[in-house]
Amino acid sequence: MQVRAAVAHRAGAPLTIETVDLEGPRAGEVLVELKATGVCHTDAFTLSGDDPEGLFPAILGHEGAGVVVDVGPGVTSLKKGDHVIPLYTPECRQCEYCLNPKTNLCQSIRETQGRGLMPDGSSRFSIGGEKIHHYMGTSTFAQFTVLPEIALAKIRQDAPFDKVCYIGCGVTTGIGAVVYTAKVEVGSKVVVFGLGGIGLNVIQGARLAGASMIVGVDLNPGKKAMAERFGMTHFVNPAEVEGDLVPYLVSLTKGGADYTFECIGSTKVMRQALECAHKGWGTSVIIGVAGAGQEISTRPFQLVTGRNWRGSAFGGARGRTDVPQIVDWYMDGRIEIDPMITHTMPLDDINRAFDLMHSGESIRSVVLY
Amino acid sequence: MQVRAAVAHRAGAPLTIETVDLEGPRAGEVLVELKATGVCHTDAFTLSGDDPEGLFPAILGHEGAGVVVDVGPGVTSLKKGDHVIPLYTPECRQCEYCLNPKTNLCQSIRETQGRGLMPDGSSRFSIGGEKIHHYMGTSTFAQFTVLPEIALAKIRQDAPFDKVCYIGCGVTTGIGAVVYTAKVEVGSKVVVFGLGGIGLNVIQGARLAGASMIVGVDLNPGKKAMAERFGMTHFVNPAEVEGDLVPYLVSLTKGGADYTFECIGSTKVMRQALECAHKGWGTSVIIGVAGAGQEISTRPFQLVTGRNWRGSAFGGARGRTDVPQIVDWYMDGRIEIDPMITHTMPLDDINRAFDLMHSGESIRSVVLY
Repeated sequence: MQVRAAVAHRAGAPLTIETVDLEGPRAGEVLVELKATGVCHTDAFTLSGDDPEGLFPAILGHEGAGVVVDVGPGVTSLKKGDHVIPLYTPECRQCEYCLNPKTNLCQSIRETQGRGLMPDGSSRFSIGGEKIHHYMGTSTFAQFTVLPEIALAKIRQDAPFDKVCYIGCGVTTGIGAVVYTAKVEVGSKVVVFGLGGIGLNVIQGARLAGASMIVGVDLNPGKKAMAERFGMTHFVNPAEVEGDLVPYLVSLTKGGADYTFECIGSTKVMRQALECAHKGWGTSVIIGVAGAGQEISTRPFQLVTGRNWRGSAFGGARGRTDVPQIVDWYMDGRIEIDPMITHTMPLDDINRAFDLMHSGESIRSVVLY
Repeated sequence: MQVRAAVAHRAGAPLTIETVDLEGPRAGEVLVELKATGVCHTDAFTLSGDDPEGLFPAILGHEGAGVVVDVGPGVTSLKKGDHVIPLYTPECRQCEYCLNPKTNLCQSIRETQGRGLMPDGSSRFSIGGEKIHHYMGTSTFAQFTVLPEIALAKIRQDAPFDKVCYIGCGVTTGIGAVVYTAKVEVGSKVVVFGLGGIGLNVIQGARLAGASMIVGVDLNPGKKAMAERFGMTHFVNPAEVEGDLVPYLVSLTKGGADYTFECIGSTKVMRQALECAHKGWGTSVIIGVAGAGQEISTRPFQLVTGRNWRGSAFGGARGRTDVPQIVDWYMDGRIEIDPMITHTMPLDDINRAFDLMHSGESIRSVVLY
């Protein structure tokens, strides 16, 4: 079939809206009509050319929601008409990783996904016979896309696509880091570094988990009001702190935070996040993605005296299991998404979503098909 | 009273055996007659002058076992005749740390202990009126010593002092890191870096926990036989590995170890220990003490992809609760101590214990009173 899509022909150039050829689903695959997709910093990172693993030409996008329109042979868990969210971290429920309750990093199709291909090693997208790469196994910047069955979370039919698409990445990454990775307990003290989209979702995850103190740290005071709306109890602007930030945060939290989250991607901030965690039991979770080759460091004494240093990818969520639950939380009003979505636009205007990201404000654009 | 003790008058000099004045126990304190004490690398570290927190003159020693001979006012949990092991990590059961099940780092007397004093801010040891510092709150290099009640584990009467004194530090540090800090599960794959006393105890802890693969890493092949005796299943000499050690260990463990332990104090090895832990769920525990100012580092990707980096002090053990249990494990034959104790000597020969440590072999000397 022929579908409209935003094609990334090469790094650093705008996307072009084109008609591309999409082959139907093969065994174990599903054809999805996308209804909405978020535009995330990770898409921009790859488009910029800074992502060493970026492949071109490709159809980017990894934060979508849509409807199943066809299934390939052997697909048993999904049928035409099902509402779904694509999963860049799949859940096969068969591999060594899926069978270990300590991780969500399903490895079953990792190798082909990393090469921009479906699990059988081929692409479904092409233009005039030239192969177009898939991206993160999802390629949601297209009206229709093909995904492996294991990379689709089936969600309730009454959830609005233009909001729950954000659960495909940002919401789950932030809330999941709190709920699934850190397992924050009621009454905990939490510090969140960076109040962009991920940070806001960490904050509302901490509120959901019953944290008693939620400190947000950001150099931009313009982000304070929004973060307070999502549950932040204390705002710290490092530029206004006299002396070092770490002892200030240790003092503010009366000994250190039970949990800290780095949502920026700065190795310097990752160290601060670890060191303001409470001696004896504080856990620091890295969510942000650092630049290639950058390293974190600290004195080992920080760990020997009881701090834990760990990370979270896709919020530690098992997509097919946990994403439908997060959709329920949204539909039940336990978490908010609507105020985080600042712009919506048709596919034709998708390049504007990338332009908006450079403003420095917390922007989340959603493309509607 | 007057007691025989080994006094460290200044850094870098041998201990001198002298008669020192020991004041009796004040409120909440206990007078203990030591029957045996181990001589540990930490004592040697302080005596050398490399320990920036070392205080002189002092009575060193922190790995003892003995009998209660007197108690001060208000002491309720111990009485004359009780057998005890001194605890350099006390357990008050009252402070914020003791009441948090995630840590063993009781802070109730930390400040005075760090200054070489009893909790009331004074010393019980003196020579001719000159104050002698306590050390690690224990000062076991003396025939009698005074300790806070909360710094004594009451143990069974039939346990041999000359063996269970080692539970006061090395045994608990190694076994505890496995059992209390990492909580190694049956069937786990474990890698242990450094096959000195701590490493041997990590190995037997892993055996006790039912690990299925216990890899020992050491540059000294002479340590292989002893480690095998304690449960090591595979020996790796980094000097004999072609190429990098980390991928070799990842391959040997078929994807990485579930748990790794650094028992050396090398920041380079700490990084290797983290990076050979399994993607998705591997935990690396730092036990070794690095040199002052040294830092650990890695790419944050190592944590974001699911590895946990943490540390362990006194094996995560709560001394009054866990040390008596470890004594039981020894008496029940579930762990071994006897073959690790390579030398015994009277107090007069204690400087020989320090000399022996420089041999590079796994040495554990015990001083008998």
